[in-house]
Amino acid sequence: MLLCDIGNTSFHFFDGKDDYKKSVNTFESSAIKEDVFYICVNPQLKEVLKLLKNWIDLSQYIDMSKYYKTMGVDRVFACEAISDGIIIDAGSAVTVDIVKNGVYEGGFIYPGIKAMSETYKNISSALDYSFNFECDLDIMPKNSQDSISYGYLKALYSEVMSHNMQIYLTGGDAKEFAKIFPDAKIDERLIFKGMKKIINNTKELTC
Amino acid sequence: MLLCDIGNTSFHFFDGKDDYKKSVNTFESSAIKEDVFYICVNPQLKEVLKLLKNWIDLSQYIDMSKYYKTMGVDRVFACEAISDGIIIDAGSAVTVDIVKNGVYEGGFIYPGIKAMSETYKNISSALDYSFNFECDLDIMPKNSQDSISYGYLKALYSEVMSHNMQIYLTGGDAKEFAKIFPDAKIDERLIFKGMKKIINNTKELTC
Repeated sequence: MLLCDIGNTSFHFFDGKDDYKKSVNTFESSAIKEDVFYICVNPQLKEVLKLLKNWIDLSQYIDMSKYYKTMGVDRVFACEAISDGIIIDAGSAVTVDIVKNGVYEGGFIYPGIKAMSETYKNISSALDYSFNFECDLDIMPKNSQDSISYGYLKALYSEVMSHNMQIYLTGGDAKEFAKIFPDAKIDERLIFKGMKKIINNTKELTC
Repeated sequence: MLLCDIGNTSFHFFDGKDDYKKSVNTFESSAIKEDVFYICVNPQLKEVLKLLKNWIDLSQYIDMSKYYKTMGVDRVFACEAISDGIIIDAGSAVTVDIVKNGVYEGGFIYPGIKAMSETYKNISSALDYSFNFECDLDIMPKNSQDSISYGYLKALYSEVMSHNMQIYLTGGDAKEFAKIFPDAKIDERLIFKGMKKIINNTKELTC
């Protein structure tokens, strides 16, 4: 069984053993002949994949009344993977979502590393530093690099920790954020777990 | 006595009674004949003002060993105005600084409203919303506008509140942020207070 999580820049495949990425600019989806169960946040690609019979859009099997209309389908599938916890999906945006007893409680969106770094640089060239993920978040900073690192990271940290829940870290920058959330479970395949769960719970797909 | 806080976009004057702003692009500093006590974060303007005898740079009377080298002089003078508290100066950047028993404890820098709004928009056109300052920060959001508003505002709120200190709000967006920090003291003249204090404590200036 081939699973695929399609973002704006890449097809992220998982074949049950390994995961690998292909660029949306060069990958030819019709080249795959086996069944692919996918989710996709890219509207153009969605139209293309609709025409391919062996590409099966898993989003149609989700009860969206549990979530909200404009919520990214990748966030929804990450939430489906757990029954209790706070999920941080660190990519171009950092999405933070809470699930309690299998019920979606809501979530918020924070800028990703690259976007936030650009933001500080655009405010002033004096703030053009990379973030220091080793910055001590217990001490108020007294230098420019730590002042923006603390601003970006400690604000997120304080809010996430205030919920006092098991943290799950996923997404391309999960390992960076693990430095400030040392007790988090890193699971780069969280979305695939959610996809697998939906497949297993949908009779139409398992028969 | 005329005080002036000079930023990247405007001269902000205070004549002891009223305050008013003049654009850095059009205002002619040599037109003023009386003594002006000023601070300035704009390096080009600093060079111009050095040549005018009646413009007196107050930054030279600060003991900078209490602060750090690259810290903005406007932040330093806001800190000089208080002896205990957490100062939020909300402008193009939101700077947050802590003073305890007259001692500077450190601070951090967070993006201002305009910069952060651009950030979300650049991540995805689906996040192109203005921030909702009336968003309920006690409830995890379930819609896109509140998801970014909460991300921007609640993260800052959680971090600021964790210090459990009197909050002082200043800067051009002080009134917007007062909506999420209802117990804060709004003081749009905080920097002028710091400037006045330095003048009063400097013999050379009062004799």
